[in-house]
Amino acid sequence: MILHLNSNIKENEAHALAKETKAICFHDGQQFVFVTASSLKEVPAFLQDKISNFWVLPNDNQLASKIYMKESRTIDFGLFKIGGNTKNTVLIGGPCSVESESQIMESATFMSSLDLKMFRGGCYKPRTSPYSFQGLGLEGLKLLAKVREKFGMIVITEARDASHIDEIIEYTDVIQVGAKAMYDQGILRACAKTQKPVLIKRGFGTTLQEFVQAAEFVLSGGNPNVILCERGIRTFETGTRFTLDLCGVAWLKLHTNLPIILDPSHAMGYAYGVSDLSKACVAMGIDGLLIESHPNPKVALSDASQQLNHDEFKTLQSSLKLVAQSVGYQMI
Amino acid sequence: MILHLNSNIKENEAHALAKETKAICFHDGQQFVFVTASSLKEVPAFLQDKISNFWVLPNDNQLASKIYMKESRTIDFGLFKIGGNTKNTVLIGGPCSVESESQIMESATFMSSLDLKMFRGGCYKPRTSPYSFQGLGLEGLKLLAKVREKFGMIVITEARDASHIDEIIEYTDVIQVGAKAMYDQGILRACAKTQKPVLIKRGFGTTLQEFVQAAEFVLSGGNPNVILCERGIRTFETGTRFTLDLCGVAWLKLHTNLPIILDPSHAMGYAYGVSDLSKACVAMGIDGLLIESHPNPKVALSDASQQLNHDEFKTLQSSLKLVAQSVGYQMI
Amino acid sequence: MILHLNSNIKENEAHALAKETKAICFHDGQQFVFVTASSLKEVPAFLQDKISNFWVLPNDNQLASKIYMKESRTIDFGLFKIGGNTKNTVLIGGPCSVESESQIMESATFMSSLDLKMFRGGCYKPRTSPYSFQGLGLEGLKLLAKVREKFGMIVITEARDASHIDEIIEYTDVIQVGAKAMYDQGILRACAKTQKPVLIKRGFGTTLQEFVQAAEFVLSGGNPNVILCERGIRTFETGTRFTLDLCGVAWLKLHTNLPIILDPSHAMGYAYGVSDLSKACVAMGIDGLLIESHPNPKVALSDASQQLNHDEFKTLQSSLKLVAQSVGYQMI
Amino acid sequence: MILHLNSNIKENEAHALAKETKAICFHDGQQFVFVTASSLKEVPAFLQDKISNFWVLPNDNQLASKIYMKESRTIDFGLFKIGGNTKNTVLIGGPCSVESESQIMESATFMSSLDLKMFRGGCYKPRTSPYSFQGLGLEGLKLLAKVREKFGMIVITEARDASHIDEIIEYTDVIQVGAKAMYDQGILRACAKTQKPVLIKRGFGTTLQEFVQAAEFVLSGGNPNVILCERGIRTFETGTRFTLDLCGVAWLKLHTNLPIILDPSHAMGYAYGVSDLSKACVAMGIDGLLIESHPNPKVALSDASQQLNHDEFKTLQSSLKLVAQSVGYQMI
Repeated sequence: MILHLNSNIKENEAHALAKETKAICFHDGQQFVFVTASSLKEVPAFLQDKISNFWVLPNDNQLASKIYMKESRTIDFGLFKIGGNTKNTVLIGGPCSVESESQIMESATFMSSLDLKMFRGGCYKPRTSPYSFQGLGLEGLKLLAKVREKFGMIVITEARDASHIDEIIEYTDVIQVGAKAMYDQGILRACAKTQKPVLIKRGFGTTLQEFVQAAEFVLSGGNPNVILCERGIRTFETGTRFTLDLCGVAWLKLHTNLPIILDPSHAMGYAYGVSDLSKACVAMGIDGLLIESHPNPKVALSDASQQLNHDEFKTLQSSLKLVAQSVGYQMI
Repeated sequence: MILHLNSNIKENEAHALAKETKAICFHDGQQFVFVTASSLKEVPAFLQDKISNFWVLPNDNQLASKIYMKESRTIDFGLFKIGGNTKNTVLIGGPCSVESESQIMESATFMSSLDLKMFRGGCYKPRTSPYSFQGLGLEGLKLLAKVREKFGMIVITEARDASHIDEIIEYTDVIQVGAKAMYDQGILRACAKTQKPVLIKRGFGTTLQEFVQAAEFVLSGGNPNVILCERGIRTFETGTRFTLDLCGVAWLKLHTNLPIILDPSHAMGYAYGVSDLSKACVAMGIDGLLIESHPNPKVALSDASQQLNHDEFKTLQSSLKLVAQSVGYQMI
Repeated sequence: MILHLNSNIKENEAHALAKETKAICFHDGQQFVFVTASSLKEVPAFLQDKISNFWVLPNDNQLASKIYMKESRTIDFGLFKIGGNTKNTVLIGGPCSVESESQIMESATFMSSLDLKMFRGGCYKPRTSPYSFQGLGLEGLKLLAKVREKFGMIVITEARDASHIDEIIEYTDVIQVGAKAMYDQGILRACAKTQKPVLIKRGFGTTLQEFVQAAEFVLSGGNPNVILCERGIRTFETGTRFTLDLCGVAWLKLHTNLPIILDPSHAMGYAYGVSDLSKACVAMGIDGLLIESHPNPKVALSDASQQLNHDEFKTLQSSLKLVAQSVGYQMI
Repeated sequence: MILHLNSNIKENEAHALAKETKAICFHDGQQFVFVTASSLKEVPAFLQDKISNFWVLPNDNQLASKIYMKESRTIDFGLFKIGGNTKNTVLIGGPCSVESESQIMESATFMSSLDLKMFRGGCYKPRTSPYSFQGLGLEGLKLLAKVREKFGMIVITEARDASHIDEIIEYTDVIQVGAKAMYDQGILRACAKTQKPVLIKRGFGTTLQEFVQAAEFVLSGGNPNVILCERGIRTFETGTRFTLDLCGVAWLKLHTNLPIILDPSHAMGYAYGVSDLSKACVAMGIDGLLIESHPNPKVALSDASQQLNHDEFKTLQSSLKLVAQSVGYQMI
């Protein structure tokens, strides 16, 4: 159950009441908000004259639910917005990993020349083997900060685990919680304490319900700026790397109020399918698209097979603008 | 290995040679064609002066492979074609099941009014429970024949098992091999002996490689008119009925020469997601789309939850035309 | 709903009442039995004085349900029984395919020397490629008949599709419905008309609920002798061929009254794991075990990698007897 | 590639050489060990007279591979050992969560009365919803320390994320890395720096290869005491909570040198199947079994449905001893 407390309730009283209610409590800018387990279906007597509104929810998809908030949330990146009634689909490009200053600057120069407004690059790589390239870490974060400064693009990078989450929050504009880290409460609880936008990727073995519940950790900690990212689930089919779950995207659009960004590169795992899949994603009417592109994919230190080269990326951008228009959206 | 025999080789000799080669043999209109297990990598000595061409294949995706035939095959339905360089995306509508003469005529009248050229309706329903509606059988086939006669639409219906495949082949224009029947060699071998187009649906537990190999049963029996249909695979996610595998579609477009039709209705299992998913499908650049629609979905005897009503179908058709255009295709 | 009609009701009346009730009707040796869709929750008024008993079921697992019949069914093979309170675990051995008279006789001689009572061998192979060995067909069935005659073993073989089901029923003692054929109503409905035991394998993409419903096709047609066989499901893990679902076996034991036989050979796909898995299966307390073994696995025409050689099979049999004893069962 | 350096090589030189080789370097008590990416197939020239032995590996399952170490590793818990040639199967019992002092003491008193040597209890619960019970945290760890002191049992508890890994390492005897945390390099790298045994649970969406690679993070950091735990994978079947992958266990036994403990409680998700599944697990010949049991499962704050009560646990222990014996193992 979600409850909005009367706006005149003070912090001390709110916290005392929350404890009695066994509720998570945060202030959303207008009032204190309580969230209890969804199994609570009736407002406790001692709260009845303290609240302005309440919502009974069928499951623990609560703050993210369309039942609580009918409209999709708007996320304001400063330079532009997505979600709400903006009909914007933001194209986010960049390499899988930040590998060196020259590589990242070449990439950013190109993306900037295409008027891209958001730039991606991994610094802490969640590799499944300790014997693969692990990312540049803090050094990479500093290179991304240079990209922001030089090109004015918003940068997004991924937290691998809780041990470096403070650095990530300090250096990046948008915090990405990766598919392997999305159950990591150390990360999620840290993200809840900032107001920076948080993009949560769906784990490849994660149900839609669990995916939304990961968002609830951030939302219920007081950060309303959460974006969901579908990037492929693991199925019996191994001809492609993962299986992009667009049925799941339809489910998320119906059941949640969170903006949705798709990542066809990781789903497909091979550059050859990224273009067609990207068109499919954009045709659904979504808030953004995350595409990996590398100045020279053949020598990439990670995900070599799935990154587009710059020519392919440019061609794709042109095609996507037409598809977006055909469904009433604009690519930015 | 695929081998094209010299065109002057006569039937008797061809069959004798095929036996010696342990090859499947058919005549493709121009020459006899041999197909052996793909493990054969060298032309047998006794065949070397009998052949005009040969192809070594890495696996048993052979006649369907782009290695054998670079261009996508064209399927000619008389009224129109798909595949090849046609850039046509055919919209196929109709109810899940043929339920009664009035229901099927109402549906066909509507679909015809939208200029649809292909009409679907199931007569032998492959239900998982014996206690559900099983379809009208032969009576249903006769109703579909009436639809063809009255409206001039091409009809497509599904074979459930080999016990009634001859009836299906007799009455329908396009033979649908359902997801639960696609390993059924009784059906596949019967389909190989006609020249009518055969649409094979991917089993929900079927790999892409196996899917293509089902087509090989038909192709190697001498029927070149095979279409593949992705309709969702079974994954751990049960918030939606199945998971539409568009990564798999990208794989099929790269590896096979067969036209591809998509069925978002069965994948999603709920009408609410069918519109967005259909747009996604069409944006990939495909040969057709199969959408279930019922005059009154609430009383449908099967798949009630996923069928669009007529208004929804009409609106969807308009939207899809724009999406198809945006990727250089036309809806027909 | 299942209803038992009063035993004095005659055939004509029973059929008339069944039609009115929209029920499937069969005689179980004692009375006429009606089965309706499980959505029917109340006995129709016109039946109330015609019935001796009725059962309301939560879903279409009806005749197979423990709600209808508390005890596991006993299957009588003549030579021995399984199920009920027998505590027998029958070991079924033999090669994947019947390949030749010498191969099958060598195998049967060996299995008979170990006192095995049931012998397996495939004649119609449901291969996924048309370019692989397809089985000896009728010739193979005749070889199995020779095995039966010579060694007195019960033989079990598989129906691939409905086109040859009559031959299978004629020649074999136990009809196996394979994993790829278990939705095939042509086969299931034919099996319902005999009284020979039917072993239904779970499809690798089939839910437990659907699996039991396949049994309902046979049971509701009047054949009570149905056995379920778990043989591995398809999951994201491809290090092994399939994933043997023993959690599912626990579910089946709780929810159904049907005997359960397990097939670890197909699940594993590699001979190295078959021994440990077989012990695991037997330790669960099951009604039988199906193990593929070939006189010379390296030259087997199908499933070469997963078949045990005769020495391995003999050693395994000894180990399994001890495991069976430890859980209160005896291997036969 | 794994390389053993000559034992007279000093630390400084080892580290310099490791850097040049791009190898991970640790001292295993006898010599410095280098591990490079498995793509390196030849010993670099500058190392050829510095090494005593080397192993070329086909993939990044290296230190855990049977190619490197033929025998299963022995883990010494002080009180007893598992693995190697011990033929011990340790039974680990206890509740899902530490809920209160009285609950945990009641449970420990019971487990101790059955002569159990290892006790489990979760303190940081990796719940998928923020609105569920999250565990007692440090307070719970202190209660487990009391159990160890009072009953002399070894305690095992789970790290949820890297933010509290130091506490876990300090308080527990065996560190459990949970299914949702097993990609967490913050945890894995911390576990590598202790010599305490580490039990890594397989993620429910994790391939066997990735699972073993998680162990490589710990092994290559210098902690040789790693145990693998299979606890069920996520499949399309939702009649049970997960699907216990015993085919995968056979694979792990063949390919790795790490002891294996199984967790049927989490796989099944329902108490009714735990007994049969436990017997299956023990019959495979494994190093341990993890069973959840609660003094009063109905009021458990987490995993209520799958925990055995104390009577059920005691009965199960007796049965398992017989099964273990039948395969040449002893339960401890």
